[in-house]
Amino acid sequence: MRRSQRIAAITKILVERPHYVFSLNAFAEQFDAAKSTISEDLTLIRQTLQELRTGRVETISGAAGGVRYIPCLSGRQLWRRVDALCTKLAEPKRILPGGFIYLNDLAASPALLAEIGEIFAVRFAADEPQYVVTIETAGIPIALMTARSMNLPLVVARRSSRPTEGSVLTVNYESGSSRRLETMSLSRRDLQAGSRVLLMDDFMRAGGTLRGLTNLMGEFDCSVVGKAVLIETLEPQKKQVQEYISLIQLEELDEEHRSLRVKPSPWIEQQRDVDDLV
Amino acid sequence: MRRSQRIAAITKILVERPHYVFSLNAFAEQFDAAKSTISEDLTLIRQTLQELRTGRVETISGAAGGVRYIPCLSGRQLWRRVDALCTKLAEPKRILPGGFIYLNDLAASPALLAEIGEIFAVRFAADEPQYVVTIETAGIPIALMTARSMNLPLVVARRSSRPTEGSVLTVNYESGSSRRLETMSLSRRDLQAGSRVLLMDDFMRAGGTLRGLTNLMGEFDCSVVGKAVLIETLEPQKKQVQEYISLIQLEELDEEHRSLRVKPSPWIEQQRDVDDLV
Repeated sequence: MRRSQRIAAITKILVERPHYVFSLNAFAEQFDAAKSTISEDLTLIRQTLQELRTGRVETISGAAGGVRYIPCLSGRQLWRRVDALCTKLAEPKRILPGGFIYLNDLAASPALLAEIGEIFAVRFAADEPQYVVTIETAGIPIALMTARSMNLPLVVARRSSRPTEGSVLTVNYESGSSRRLETMSLSRRDLQAGSRVLLMDDFMRAGGTLRGLTNLMGEFDCSVVGKAVLIETLEPQKKQVQEYISLIQLEELDEEHRSLRVKPSPWIEQQRDVDDLV
Repeated sequence: MRRSQRIAAITKILVERPHYVFSLNAFAEQFDAAKSTISEDLTLIRQTLQELRTGRVETISGAAGGVRYIPCLSGRQLWRRVDALCTKLAEPKRILPGGFIYLNDLAASPALLAEIGEIFAVRFAADEPQYVVTIETAGIPIALMTARSMNLPLVVARRSSRPTEGSVLTVNYESGSSRRLETMSLSRRDLQAGSRVLLMDDFMRAGGTLRGLTNLMGEFDCSVVGKAVLIETLEPQKKQVQEYISLIQLEELDEEHRSLRVKPSPWIEQQRDVDDLV
């Protein structure tokens, strides 16, 4: 195989599995090339992604060493993605009876979900979570895409426990929107005690669900190293959780006047003119 | 940029978005190169993926033309993936009280889900579905990964309708395992009438859920061009749906003797020694 062909092949393998450590020996064997030749290929791939600000190729030395691809974005790229999403969300036809907002089509677009997942992966990589945790149903697509971009297992809490889950831990929580007491459950097998977890959901009003998930994590002796939502509403101002991050803020949803206002959240807004990688 | 660098960059862009048509002009502009140069780069990438039997790079001519990456697998690669999954599934510790099987950890592994999604994408590409449709909750991860590999929107039916969905269509169906009458709903906005759809679920016993989804699609005037499940049980032999495909068959689950037998489904078994692309 020629250099350019090896580069195409190795790029494909790395990019298809972010954060996974591949051994240089395995590449050398697969492509019947010297390890030094593979190293040169990797240097070229690294330089390219660096120039394009579209990811890092990291070499890990030592016995368990190898190479992995880490998704990256510049602040500006990140802001652009979220700003484009805001434009998409601000369509008045999304307003549903009762002051709800139609979002199913976002969860329907794998390309968009992959972009969102990459943003969260970039943001939380330094916090080194060991699991991405969400609750059924609407949070699953963005949580899965984030887990994929971080090479982490996805854990999904259930609103009711099922016989196909084995023994479960259950907590009650107050849903912010309905103010009703709700239940969430997680199989004991799903999550190893003492792990670091990233909590995710698609939409947050008062934060009751994230608080419930936080309590559930406490039952598993897990520590929450990050909390992320795609969209938060500005009202109510007082949230039941602290130190979460959102990509988008829903400022106003006026059913009567068919008016809907969304904007990038403050930390996204800060990235607007940043050329450095986040 | 040097050729090898352009090749790394273009490979990344293509592979990250399977089945999406990129314009050659956009590549030429982004990399400040002649269109003929980009064409040569693409030929090299095409040859590489072809040699490795790991995908096709297809050029579409005409005004709306461009280039896209289509995931492919040889029969042998496909069989190996499913066989490895069977080994993983056959662990007796998966047996849960009541004769259920623990599967949450599969849905937890994004890399495994991506592999499974790619298998379904390869299998159903020729049927040209326009949507991937599943029902909450456990089917979502494999359905999303399949949708991603096919660049199709994902549609998720709900077991109960919610106010955040707008007006919905609801059907009743008989759940094969519990023999209870259940309900599934889908927002009218989620799916365009008259579309071609691929139905997916993670687990099938009698096929009641797939039959319910088929009926729901009828309400949307959509035609079902494929039905896919990850695992089916051999019992009951008589299923409520025909012409579905599964990757894995659960032959036996004996709670008392802690015995669990799984095997690749017949159409996977047929691929075992096939070197051609599926």
